[in-house]
Amino acid sequence: MKKILLINGPNLNLIGEREVNIYGKISIENIKERCIDEGKKLGLHIDFRQTNSEGEIINWIHEVKGNFDGLIINPAGYTHTSIAILDSMKSMTKPKIEIHLSNIYSREDYRKKSITSEGVNGIISGFGINSYILALHAIKELI
Amino acid sequence: MKKILLINGPNLNLIGEREVNIYGKISIENIKERCIDEGKKLGLHIDFRQTNSEGEIINWIHEVKGNFDGLIINPAGYTHTSIAILDSMKSMTKPKIEIHLSNIYSREDYRKKSITSEGVNGIISGFGINSYILALHAIKELI
Amino acid sequence: MKKILLINGPNLNLIGEREVNIYGKISIENIKERCIDEGKKLGLHIDFRQTNSEGEIINWIHEVKGNFDGLIINPAGYTHTSIAILDSMKSMTKPKIEIHLSNIYSREDYRKKSITSEGVNGIISGFGINSYILALHAIKELI
Amino acid sequence: MKKILLINGPNLNLIGEREVNIYGKISIENIKERCIDEGKKLGLHIDFRQTNSEGEIINWIHEVKGNFDGLIINPAGYTHTSIAILDSMKSMTKPKIEIHLSNIYSREDYRKKSITSEGVNGIISGFGINSYILALHAIKELI
Amino acid sequence: MKKILLINGPNLNLIGEREVNIYGKISIENIKERCIDEGKKLGLHIDFRQTNSEGEIINWIHEVKGNFDGLIINPAGYTHTSIAILDSMKSMTKPKIEIHLSNIYSREDYRKKSITSEGVNGIISGFGINSYILALHAIKELI
Amino acid sequence: MKKILLINGPNLNLIGEREVNIYGKISIENIKERCIDEGKKLGLHIDFRQTNSEGEIINWIHEVKGNFDGLIINPAGYTHTSIAILDSMKSMTKPKIEIHLSNIYSREDYRKKSITSEGVNGIISGFGINSYILALHAIKELI
Amino acid sequence: MKKILLINGPNLNLIGEREVNIYGKISIENIKERCIDEGKKLGLHIDFRQTNSEGEIINWIHEVKGNFDGLIINPAGYTHTSIAILDSMKSMTKPKIEIHLSNIYSREDYRKKSITSEGVNGIISGFGINSYILALHAIKELI
Amino acid sequence: MKKILLINGPNLNLIGEREVNIYGKISIENIKERCIDEGKKLGLHIDFRQTNSEGEIINWIHEVKGNFDGLIINPAGYTHTSIAILDSMKSMTKPKIEIHLSNIYSREDYRKKSITSEGVNGIISGFGINSYILALHAIKELI
Amino acid sequence: MKKILLINGPNLNLIGEREVNIYGKISIENIKERCIDEGKKLGLHIDFRQTNSEGEIINWIHEVKGNFDGLIINPAGYTHTSIAILDSMKSMTKPKIEIHLSNIYSREDYRKKSITSEGVNGIISGFGINSYILALHAIKELI
Amino acid sequence: MKKILLINGPNLNLIGEREVNIYGKISIENIKERCIDEGKKLGLHIDFRQTNSEGEIINWIHEVKGNFDGLIINPAGYTHTSIAILDSMKSMTKPKIEIHLSNIYSREDYRKKSITSEGVNGIISGFGINSYILALHAIKELI
Amino acid sequence: MKKILLINGPNLNLIGEREVNIYGKISIENIKERCIDEGKKLGLHIDFRQTNSEGEIINWIHEVKGNFDGLIINPAGYTHTSIAILDSMKSMTKPKIEIHLSNIYSREDYRKKSITSEGVNGIISGFGINSYILALHAIKELI
Amino acid sequence: MKKILLINGPNLNLIGEREVNIYGKISIENIKERCIDEGKKLGLHIDFRQTNSEGEIINWIHEVKGNFDGLIINPAGYTHTSIAILDSMKSMTKPKIEIHLSNIYSREDYRKKSITSEGVNGIISGFGINSYILALHAIKELI
Repeated sequence: MKKILLINGPNLNLIGEREVNIYGKISIENIKERCIDEGKKLGLHIDFRQTNSEGEIINWIHEVKGNFDGLIINPAGYTHTSIAILDSMKSMTKPKIEIHLSNIYSREDYRKKSITSEGVNGIISGFGINSYILALHAIKELI
Repeated sequence: MKKILLINGPNLNLIGEREVNIYGKISIENIKERCIDEGKKLGLHIDFRQTNSEGEIINWIHEVKGNFDGLIINPAGYTHTSIAILDSMKSMTKPKIEIHLSNIYSREDYRKKSITSEGVNGIISGFGINSYILALHAIKELI
Repeated sequence: MKKILLINGPNLNLIGEREVNIYGKISIENIKERCIDEGKKLGLHIDFRQTNSEGEIINWIHEVKGNFDGLIINPAGYTHTSIAILDSMKSMTKPKIEIHLSNIYSREDYRKKSITSEGVNGIISGFGINSYILALHAIKELI
Repeated sequence: MKKILLINGPNLNLIGEREVNIYGKISIENIKERCIDEGKKLGLHIDFRQTNSEGEIINWIHEVKGNFDGLIINPAGYTHTSIAILDSMKSMTKPKIEIHLSNIYSREDYRKKSITSEGVNGIISGFGINSYILALHAIKELI
Repeated sequence: MKKILLINGPNLNLIGEREVNIYGKISIENIKERCIDEGKKLGLHIDFRQTNSEGEIINWIHEVKGNFDGLIINPAGYTHTSIAILDSMKSMTKPKIEIHLSNIYSREDYRKKSITSEGVNGIISGFGINSYILALHAIKELI
Repeated sequence: MKKILLINGPNLNLIGEREVNIYGKISIENIKERCIDEGKKLGLHIDFRQTNSEGEIINWIHEVKGNFDGLIINPAGYTHTSIAILDSMKSMTKPKIEIHLSNIYSREDYRKKSITSEGVNGIISGFGINSYILALHAIKELI
Repeated sequence: MKKILLINGPNLNLIGEREVNIYGKISIENIKERCIDEGKKLGLHIDFRQTNSEGEIINWIHEVKGNFDGLIINPAGYTHTSIAILDSMKSMTKPKIEIHLSNIYSREDYRKKSITSEGVNGIISGFGINSYILALHAIKELI
Repeated sequence: MKKILLINGPNLNLIGEREVNIYGKISIENIKERCIDEGKKLGLHIDFRQTNSEGEIINWIHEVKGNFDGLIINPAGYTHTSIAILDSMKSMTKPKIEIHLSNIYSREDYRKKSITSEGVNGIISGFGINSYILALHAIKELI
Repeated sequence: MKKILLINGPNLNLIGEREVNIYGKISIENIKERCIDEGKKLGLHIDFRQTNSEGEIINWIHEVKGNFDGLIINPAGYTHTSIAILDSMKSMTKPKIEIHLSNIYSREDYRKKSITSEGVNGIISGFGINSYILALHAIKELI
Repeated sequence: MKKILLINGPNLNLIGEREVNIYGKISIENIKERCIDEGKKLGLHIDFRQTNSEGEIINWIHEVKGNFDGLIINPAGYTHTSIAILDSMKSMTKPKIEIHLSNIYSREDYRKKSITSEGVNGIISGFGINSYILALHAIKELI
Repeated sequence: MKKILLINGPNLNLIGEREVNIYGKISIENIKERCIDEGKKLGLHIDFRQTNSEGEIINWIHEVKGNFDGLIINPAGYTHTSIAILDSMKSMTKPKIEIHLSNIYSREDYRKKSITSEGVNGIISGFGINSYILALHAIKELI
Repeated sequence: MKKILLINGPNLNLIGEREVNIYGKISIENIKERCIDEGKKLGLHIDFRQTNSEGEIINWIHEVKGNFDGLIINPAGYTHTSIAILDSMKSMTKPKIEIHLSNIYSREDYRKKSITSEGVNGIISGFGINSYILALHAIKELI
């Protein structure tokens, strides 16, 4: 079974409680469960994590080398500002996918500029929880 | 069976011949075939088209209303410049997905600004032909 | 009777179906009818056309010389991007008026920049169908 | 009879003396006379004013509520700089139209950015004195 | 008793009538009354004024020297454009506070840039009428 | 008694030692003491914290829901860069106030742009320790 | 004897009291006296005025035509923002000179952009009161 | 004999009638004739075309591969806006030259930015009809 | 012996594994060893640390006061984004040097803007591991 | 007698032959003669020079210290680009004046930005040869 | 025989040694020889020069008047920065052509902005040594 | 013994006399002496030069090839503007180091942008005369 690290960035622990008009009512636990189930069907073991810390995200990305076969990341608010996360993704050559729950292009202007996207293989955004499921399918192809 | 319009924008007819380092060697015919096959499995009838004309893309988007259940579009070079295509997508409320073969964020600066993305439900980019396959799965969920 | 060419740009064929909160419920056929009627009262024969193609708009503008006494144009989404349409209007010295259904200044930022407006005599925007009627009166004065 | 307040902004008192190549030779008195006459035909009483003071323009816009049925304004040089005038127009819900004698898009770059236009129903520019006459017709429809 | 000049800038005379969703229903007279009452409790005599004129605001700021112990100002629309008001505040060394009813950072982009704020001791914004009351407390400390 | 979380961002632990010409000589302990005392008078229990970690700030903001009645935050250097903190504040609907010791508008250019301010009810800046005291009064009104 | 209108813009009434490190200790009355004296030597009658109102500056500029032989203006804070004053100077063909007490290029960035300077014959800045005296000599040549 | 495709973009059909001060009086037919004649001398067969459609330009560029030995293109108004044409030129490895009748650097600001030029071997601009003749000589060298 | 704190920012733990074409093959352990050795020769005790956390970097910088005689820092990806780190360095008056392995001016555009550099005495970049050695020599002079 | 160095920058040797509509017909020799004559009347010995070399201008500015009592400079085209000349003027504390024949604010946009002006006491521009004469009077006051 | 001045700007003396991937292996002597030979065929005497000094380029351009029938210039690195060279070309009315060895539009961003191009009749870039030969043919037509 | 060319750019001849608060009191002769002495210890022969001419700097850089083993350059004011110097450094493959006396990041905004730095191996700035000494050590390693 292939091992995938799935990182959720800042504030995603509140999904379902927060800005429901944008993100819908599904909770982070729902998402985790769905990902682990779908992973099983695809032969992928999902290590599903969440943190609000930029530094911890980088630490986790460093874990990929030697421990995982691929990375799926939703950098949330750090998408638009973190060169450090971009650097950590560039330093890692395993398959890596960036995902977003909402379509960042139909929101505030400052969400249209993405720093981290430059460091991944592909991006999936705007499908709600399905962004996660599609990323699992996509990473299976890349591995 | 649900009907999906899949529009390929300018220069995508040359995929496989052009800039192989970016796009790979797969041809537009290969992509078409794969999409139709995958569509069948998903219960989707795919009307697969390509044009280099901005106006024709708009005409085709207008066809969606009344004739199709969803739209998948790779606006290619018009992604970064066409407010008219954006308007046509905004005027249409069926599910709609934007796709790109390459990760536009890891290329030239002028490809990082997207005009059309504001008008769709979700975006999938950077997975080569798999961007198309993932979009078929994604639109099935949206319908 | 004076002859006026009235060109409607991309997506205006969908007026009445699309973004009703901005454009109202009147259809392109209603607008056409109203323009032809009002034209008759003013001694103007109106050739009322719509296209989604930038190239066709330019072709039609070229027809003005030698065939028409004036031009009324709603460039819609091309207003903000087309130097080619601007050039075609600058190359033509007959009276020419740009119109918009909505007030482009109270909408998205990218609609506040107008490229084509530099090439016309005057601009009327924000009055819905009445933008067309006012333009007929205005062009009568200019001829 | 409906009452319309028609405000002329800075330097419009000099129209006809100033920059004749842009504005033509018609004087502010000519414009006033034409507006009052045309108003009568349309059943509109025109209160025609001019001031060079930004503060006085705002005071006058405040008068509209309770005293007038609509506002026509040529903010002239304040068009491009006054958020205060924009605020005063936004705070007032009667029909309001912005007019310009010349086409501001075919002049200096700093005239292409309009601050005040965001606060009105519609804009008419570039028709010389006829911008005023067209605005009278337009406001009659809006009332 | 200390004397405070409290200047309200353009359109604040309409507070309570205007854009109620942003500013609430309280009127300028309510604000005045509340300020004078609260001032009394704090040992401050409040000279509460409103004008729509940039020049008059400057004149009033000049009055502070020699006549008042401090200045509270809500420059409203001039906040974002007036270097002249900034200069007048810089030329005056008495305590001075800028206030806003709404949080200018959660509104239009052009309200996020403040010119005048550079010239004051402190800024209080977003608390509605309470911005005024807090400013009275703040200026008492500064005097 | 109402419970308020008061978060101090990066480098505020050094207040009183650092850049005395801008921030004065008062220490973080002095500020804490003053806040707790003033809180008591106002019936507010103040949980006063400081951290240099962006992630920890977000964690703490998440604590507000269910544990506190309001939030006062001095995001310090993160004010100008952190979309992640902005997101965390937007996801929380309790009263929230941003404070600054100095007037950020009279300092370096890069301090004039605020990211986080968009997510709060109101902002108080430039009054030194009194910014904290005023915020306590302000939040009492908001609860 | 030739007649010259000399207009001083906002806050110049406070010269000598304000920002002494930049402007020196000379008062507006000193400047007036020096200008009138020097004018006499040069055969120029100086009408020396000061106002804080943008609108009044425009009114006064309009007076030049028919009443004066030339204009000297220190637009102060309006230099950097007023298109309306620029328009009024462009509409007037008599000799006109802009002056500044300080060198605006060695001050804040926002003082380096000048709007009004486009409308005058020449500019003299940075010589303190001598900017005025030099302008008198300069305008004598231009008349 | 080598075969060259020579594409003229929007509005070039009107050359000789339009903006004579910039482009001179020579017509598109004159240019065609001169190019074919000069081509013969150089052993080049010239397929000389004109269109106002961006899509058709792209279609024609696609024809080069397999049918022509080189491309000369005057993209006219599309020079400054078309990423789609740039893409089509990048996808084609035959010799390709961009030409302009006028020197785009001595005209409006928006003509100084060129999008398409990045995709060609060389650029010749500002020599009127001679830009075409020089390009024929240049492409002969490149083939 | 003088004590120096040497902080390595995000992703530097991977040096030698990551982007070898830019950074070479030397590992963080090699760098540490070389620094400690060279430090000994210079009479400097080197406390060599690495972290991916912005907050921890700030904590460490705060340690300098009272515990170290100087600071050498390679802020890596935070160089271009962290005002918080800049603030922490400004708040500390011991000698401080910024270093980079690569020449940030010959890389991506977003690496050419440095936020943190404003807060140090001097900068050494582009010499690989020798940037560290040179910084040791440089700080010895500054102490 | 006081000694003044008067430096003319690039292309000023051609004054009178070049762009007569902007600069008039007076030659550099005329200007020199007028300056020397006027200098004599004012007790100033004028060393009048011209060069097209940026480096030579800097060399000459360095001569001022120890050899001259003041500097008058017309940096011409280097005004808008030379930080090196600005540095050389900043390094010299004798009185220094920048002059221009034309009003740089009423010309091309790239002439509105001045680099060198930051380094002088005052600026005189737009008076043709009289800019030189006024500068002689101005520098006499400054010495 | 007509006389042409051909100026090569900075670093062109190293052509053939430098950045061979961009400029090819041909040396400045080869280019000189080819130009003189081709000139003879065309009845043109070529005065071929190279300098690294901006001032000397300006001096040489001034020589054209009275000594030459035309100018061909490759301003190299000064293309993007020198207003002084632009001014010197504008002051000279003989035919003048700018050339570049490489296509500056397919290189670094800072090479896409050209200052000097505004001052010439036409531009030829991207053809290597053939840019020179084409320019000789082009200038023959212009004389 | 290795030979090093050490170039000092504009105004560095005045170091020690000029802006002492920024550069300290050490003279160019002191720096020269120190460099030659330190060079001897390191086995480096230093050819120490200074010029104010951009062209001469380029000439000197061209000398490196064939005559020197490395280049150390302080481009001073040309750092921020000279693409020509950048080009000359790029054309030369010997080791090359850029140095600055002061930390350009803690000075004016226009000093934060560096053009020339892109062309060197490494940069050392902010250590006063020690920047030179460190560069000697650094270049010894690079040779």
